[in-house]
Amino acid sequence: MRKLSMDDLHRKSVGEFLEAEKFPVIAVLENIRSAYNVGSVFRTADAFLLEEILLVGYCAIPPHKEIAKTALGAEQSMQWKHFDNSADAIQYLRGKGYLVIGIEQTSDSVPLQQLKKINGQPTAYIFGNEVKGVEQTTLEMCDYCMEIPQFGTKHSLNIAVAAGMVLWEAVKNCPEFSKK
Amino acid sequence: MRKLSMDDLHRKSVGEFLEAEKFPVIAVLENIRSAYNVGSVFRTADAFLLEEILLVGYCAIPPHKEIAKTALGAEQSMQWKHFDNSADAIQYLRGKGYLVIGIEQTSDSVPLQQLKKINGQPTAYIFGNEVKGVEQTTLEMCDYCMEIPQFGTKHSLNIAVAAGMVLWEAVKNCPEFSKK
Repeated sequence: MRKLSMDDLHRKSVGEFLEAEKFPVIAVLENIRSAYNVGSVFRTADAFLLEEILLVGYCAIPPHKEIAKTALGAEQSMQWKHFDNSADAIQYLRGKGYLVIGIEQTSDSVPLQQLKKINGQPTAYIFGNEVKGVEQTTLEMCDYCMEIPQFGTKHSLNIAVAAGMVLWEAVKNCPEFSKK
Repeated sequence: MRKLSMDDLHRKSVGEFLEAEKFPVIAVLENIRSAYNVGSVFRTADAFLLEEILLVGYCAIPPHKEIAKTALGAEQSMQWKHFDNSADAIQYLRGKGYLVIGIEQTSDSVPLQQLKKINGQPTAYIFGNEVKGVEQTTLEMCDYCMEIPQFGTKHSLNIAVAAGMVLWEAVKNCPEFSKK
């Protein structure tokens, strides 16, 4: 159980990352208040070789001191775009052939463990504001809503933590995952 | 796709949480530097109805202002214990019949997606310091090491995000999960 060194890990350089074939998964951040949360999703998206990140509305965008503090450089490797609103972001995603999934607790959301049943094409996941969640008007434009089952006292998870769980499931379910 | 209200979610009160049968999963935090990260794991552990959290070494413990800021009250519902060192924590876990899994990138760590192959008994997951990871001496006491596959430029994930992914897999793999 020898702990691996930095060199042992054989991570990509930023140049290698930019050239690499990505997993067909996109994270969409809608009106996220905390730039630390935005940066944290960049770090996770880099680890999982995501296609790109879409930043919507008043989300902070790079370069930004607080994003940099939690992204730890992943804002250099991860491709991102900004959209003024989610309607424009969803139109862009549909143009690329992506299925659009809102992460929210709704009357008919699919539990995260069932993601494999609806997967099989490129997927984009919309994460909403820390307090309000994904906007109702945005949810109505999604192909699916999906939620992380929760059994405790709190009504939600931290957005960067929730994004980690969802993006892990998304990447794990890509046919390309087992070939890596 | 109607967004659910707080009332619709039917979350447990702290009293109900304390009485509820927990998932046989324990998170162990070894020398975590940031009390915000500790609080964030409390919030996730509450959502997943974990048995308890073990705080080891110089981890901050509740009550603590920074833990409260990210736990958002989950430090009231989640049971926790403090141990001076991981050897004592592991002895306690073995006494309870828990399998001990270190979350670290090692020469023989099992990828997270294979958790279901080694599961079937109560499991505890050790998460290490933000910079140094799990101590080598601790890893040598674990039954398994497990890692989250990563394909990008950064060498690791944020500890609260990594804990989210691992605890989600752990709880999902519990036989009790499908009955909830």
